[in-house]
Amino acid sequence: MFKLIHQDKNSRARLGKLNTAHGEIDTPCFMPVGTQGAVKTLSPAELEEAHTQVMLCNAYHLFLRPGIEVIRRSGGLHKFISWDKPILTDSGGYQIFSLALLRKVSDKGVEFQSHIDGMRHLLSPEDIIDMQSGLGSDIMMPLDECVHYPCSKDHARQAMERTVDWARRSKQSAEKKQLLFGIVQGSSYQDLRKECVEKITGIGFAGYAIGGVSVGEPKNLGNDIVSFTVGFLPHDKPRYVMGVGLPEDIVEAVDSGIDMFDCVVPTRYGRNGTAFTSEGKVVVRNSPYIQDSGPLDKHCQCYACKNFSRAYLRHLFNAEEMLGLRLVSLHNINFYLHLMHQIREAVKKDEFVSFKRDFLSSYLKN
Amino acid sequence: MFKLIHQDKNSRARLGKLNTAHGEIDTPCFMPVGTQGAVKTLSPAELEEAHTQVMLCNAYHLFLRPGIEVIRRSGGLHKFISWDKPILTDSGGYQIFSLALLRKVSDKGVEFQSHIDGMRHLLSPEDIIDMQSGLGSDIMMPLDECVHYPCSKDHARQAMERTVDWARRSKQSAEKKQLLFGIVQGSSYQDLRKECVEKITGIGFAGYAIGGVSVGEPKNLGNDIVSFTVGFLPHDKPRYVMGVGLPEDIVEAVDSGIDMFDCVVPTRYGRNGTAFTSEGKVVVRNSPYIQDSGPLDKHCQCYACKNFSRAYLRHLFNAEEMLGLRLVSLHNINFYLHLMHQIREAVKKDEFVSFKRDFLSSYLKN
Repeated sequence: MFKLIHQDKNSRARLGKLNTAHGEIDTPCFMPVGTQGAVKTLSPAELEEAHTQVMLCNAYHLFLRPGIEVIRRSGGLHKFISWDKPILTDSGGYQIFSLALLRKVSDKGVEFQSHIDGMRHLLSPEDIIDMQSGLGSDIMMPLDECVHYPCSKDHARQAMERTVDWARRSKQSAEKKQLLFGIVQGSSYQDLRKECVEKITGIGFAGYAIGGVSVGEPKNLGNDIVSFTVGFLPHDKPRYVMGVGLPEDIVEAVDSGIDMFDCVVPTRYGRNGTAFTSEGKVVVRNSPYIQDSGPLDKHCQCYACKNFSRAYLRHLFNAEEMLGLRLVSLHNINFYLHLMHQIREAVKKDEFVSFKRDFLSSYLKN
Repeated sequence: MFKLIHQDKNSRARLGKLNTAHGEIDTPCFMPVGTQGAVKTLSPAELEEAHTQVMLCNAYHLFLRPGIEVIRRSGGLHKFISWDKPILTDSGGYQIFSLALLRKVSDKGVEFQSHIDGMRHLLSPEDIIDMQSGLGSDIMMPLDECVHYPCSKDHARQAMERTVDWARRSKQSAEKKQLLFGIVQGSSYQDLRKECVEKITGIGFAGYAIGGVSVGEPKNLGNDIVSFTVGFLPHDKPRYVMGVGLPEDIVEAVDSGIDMFDCVVPTRYGRNGTAFTSEGKVVVRNSPYIQDSGPLDKHCQCYACKNFSRAYLRHLFNAEEMLGLRLVSLHNINFYLHLMHQIREAVKKDEFVSFKRDFLSSYLKN
């Protein structure tokens, strides 16, 4: 399923290929987030033009709305959202722990009230697998217990052990045609992370995710957790750090040996009018751009950069025109995917270290 | 500039071609409305794919934000918004009368406070022409005084006479490279409309618009005003009815001999989740569509109809995903432009009367 194509000679960065039911994914890769079955403001055609290889959707959100059965009877998630490339579905464990009301966790699963209509639900790890099986995603994530930072060691251990137990039950109930990843928890405790990796790899999954990062910890600590946890993971399986991150975090994590990323940042920042460019972030509303006839990023080939000036984009945001949100989101997704392309090219040539240095020196210069 | 290509044998419907600095426009035509320099939620590329021939922008809105000077120094409106086909700019007279605060009309022009920031402005007919000259639109509209319905005959006469005076001054101050249309006012009074036509055609313009329709009058009266006013207009110039309308109103007005239309309805309804289809309006949020795997309109070839089901669009609206607003707006613009194409084809073959009957019987059947 996963082939390690090349290991960079001067870092832990690596090049791989992950095979799924809807095609191959070149890694390191970034997965645009379409929580509710749509990457916010963008069409599938635009994602494809941006060379998106795999999209992330959220099983918890789709379970609440429109309901798994609606999607299953529509011919599955790919058909429903009109996306015929790979889809990874997150279980929504993180969302249940952060959005849902009155949640109660037990070994059985998690009981909560919907953040939309207050309806009570009890979902077991098996239910979460059933849901993703109904959706027909290519890569499934098991239910895990994600803790916030800071977290006592006792609580972190308990959540880690429950995550392992749920992972075992998830694997038992999953069918073979969809890939299932295991998730490593353990908060910021190195020994818990190590123990979790041993237990999760002992069960055996198609890939391994590092969860519980970007949950409120200081940035350096997040990078450290990723770095030391990767050290425990097997080489022959894809490694996915969930919910990361900013461009600088992605470059750092690739350096540590991570293969897969997802984050809402490119579209969320896009809707707020903040563009990622090779020379750092551009806040298009800012007054220096009022008469700026240049594109968001002169090195970018996306539709927004080839057709519109910063002055026009600034006007669209000031005039509250939705087209502005679209165009900056589109640019940001293109920027992220182009960054991943550049990373893969650099790793291929054993030039990741110099690429990282050059990229960061331009990106962080302002 | 305008060539009357064909006159339908069984109605007043006609086929024409209007030449502008940015290309030809086949009439009857519909102009998508990009008030602030963007057709709400849609990109210029999408408008072009929908075969949009000419876009409408609003000089008053662009004057307030981002300012005419910003656009002029960006190389003009076409370049600023990335649209190289014809643009008609409305003066914004109607918007000043409906949106602006504390307005005071005199023969000099109109004094008002911006609806955005409360700034005081005095704009003369000459200023309005200057603005459109700075924008570089292909077709300009002069400042007119638009009255609401109902309106006393004295007030209607006064506004009509001021409109004529302003039209004369507008023509004097306009340069030749942009087309300037005249606007016919006169409320619902047939004799005032007739007198206005005589005076306005006496001045002489590249085309004639019927203003003061869709201002609160009953639907039938609006159609009647259009119908009797067209009777007074010359045959060899394009006729434009401003702000009209629903598909059935457009078909009716073409039957009366109207060549050009603009209306916010396709995008405004699109953002509310109401789609225009060959079988009538579809409100995508409605529960019958929860599991409907069919497209919005099975006869439509637009991106939304070729890729997405009513069930998915319903989900997008329920989940407040902006992509839903985009897709239904896109479909509606395609529906309107396809309707105009069908109208032109029917007129060409002297079949407009049967086309109108068939279209309305399908469109209004539910």
